[in-house]
Amino acid sequence: MLPKTSSFKFHIESYVCDFKGKATLPVISNFILQAATIHAHERGFGYSNILKDNVAWVLSRLSVELSDYPEHDEDLTVETWVEDVARFFTQRCFRFLNREDRVIGYARTIWAAIDIETRRPIDIPSWRPDLQDYIEAEKDCPVGKMAKIPPIGNTEPCMGYSVRYSDIDINKHMNSVKYIEHIVNTFDLDLFKEKFIRKFEIVYLLEGSFGDKLKLYKQAVSENEYLIDTKKGEDSICRSRICWTE
Amino acid sequence: MLPKTSSFKFHIESYVCDFKGKATLPVISNFILQAATIHAHERGFGYSNILKDNVAWVLSRLSVELSDYPEHDEDLTVETWVEDVARFFTQRCFRFLNREDRVIGYARTIWAAIDIETRRPIDIPSWRPDLQDYIEAEKDCPVGKMAKIPPIGNTEPCMGYSVRYSDIDINKHMNSVKYIEHIVNTFDLDLFKEKFIRKFEIVYLLEGSFGDKLKLYKQAVSENEYLIDTKKGEDSICRSRICWTE
Repeated sequence: MLPKTSSFKFHIESYVCDFKGKATLPVISNFILQAATIHAHERGFGYSNILKDNVAWVLSRLSVELSDYPEHDEDLTVETWVEDVARFFTQRCFRFLNREDRVIGYARTIWAAIDIETRRPIDIPSWRPDLQDYIEAEKDCPVGKMAKIPPIGNTEPCMGYSVRYSDIDINKHMNSVKYIEHIVNTFDLDLFKEKFIRKFEIVYLLEGSFGDKLKLYKQAVSENEYLIDTKKGEDSICRSRICWTE
Repeated sequence: MLPKTSSFKFHIESYVCDFKGKATLPVISNFILQAATIHAHERGFGYSNILKDNVAWVLSRLSVELSDYPEHDEDLTVETWVEDVARFFTQRCFRFLNREDRVIGYARTIWAAIDIETRRPIDIPSWRPDLQDYIEAEKDCPVGKMAKIPPIGNTEPCMGYSVRYSDIDINKHMNSVKYIEHIVNTFDLDLFKEKFIRKFEIVYLLEGSFGDKLKLYKQAVSENEYLIDTKKGEDSICRSRICWTE
């Protein structure tokens, strides 16, 4: 049996860097999904392994906490492991190490397994009792359980976009990370100059499709904390919380 | 002296693929710029090498021709070499090989070297006579000289966007590839289902900055050929030609 925790190295190319020469939050999120995909695949429960059961993993929540972002030309190490397997959700955690092997952050993701025809969640322990064997008891992830993110109403949208070709991923759905790219794009460049995103949380509620006209609603909770609701009409597609720090 | 031509391998990760499971044109364009950057750097005329002279390379034109796009999990090989060094422009070419080492396309780029203070082009052979030594005489690039792309006027814009955080690159300018991403986003998903972009040409005329509100104007030249003009007010920022094939 493979070890419970896997480790992946990602090189920070210039074209994934922002104007500060650091990898962006969407890029780190892509690494998270990539690490999860490979880790699961190597252990026999990746997308292509479970397709024969008509099952697909769906990302439900993502929380990322970073004390620093990796720089251009640096290698970022992403460790990932399964923390828990419950009836309808699995929790997968991540730890990030910079080039000096210093821990610069953690992430926690929550996944449902859905029947790809009915789109309904399936009972994970009955379907794959072997997943329990991969629960890592030795590692600790300090990212807490995500607090509820309330909807935002009664305000004007701060940004809108139509779902286009580059938003659609290999699974023919709106790419989970593209939502994040649009969300961070609601902030002014001056904010990125002075601060960085220390904590990011997102809960995915509905699926966006090609041509959907989405609107983003932003609410400042405090000087450094914002809620952003991505809506299609009255319905929240995803809701996120962003905490900035200097 | 290093060989005149260098070869770079890029692995096609799932998150750089479109809904057809193939790398997108913007992704191939990123590989082109990455290969150019490393090739020049290794030979002493990359961005960081020439900064001491207060000089920077600026991409002026890019033409890409592809008979196929690399698929998810495939390795794409990108070869690059300098074809010509003229007074104010260098021409750099590229050849793409798929996992079976079959040639699937070529690209041609034209670069100016500018004084980073005056932003004016400098005389390349006087500044760096040694670049002549890197001209590759053994390789041939079938991508022809770019025909003039006329401006488009008297029509309604087909799309608009504001330049945001994710559009700004490590050099603090609007990323050359992000223009291409917005350009391909003007097309309907149905077109991508039936066809692919066989030929893409872009000429960069002015620089976009954070907050700029850009508008895209599209004109069909024939069933499979479109011109797209990205404008800020009356001024063309970049103009492109896209040819589709089945």
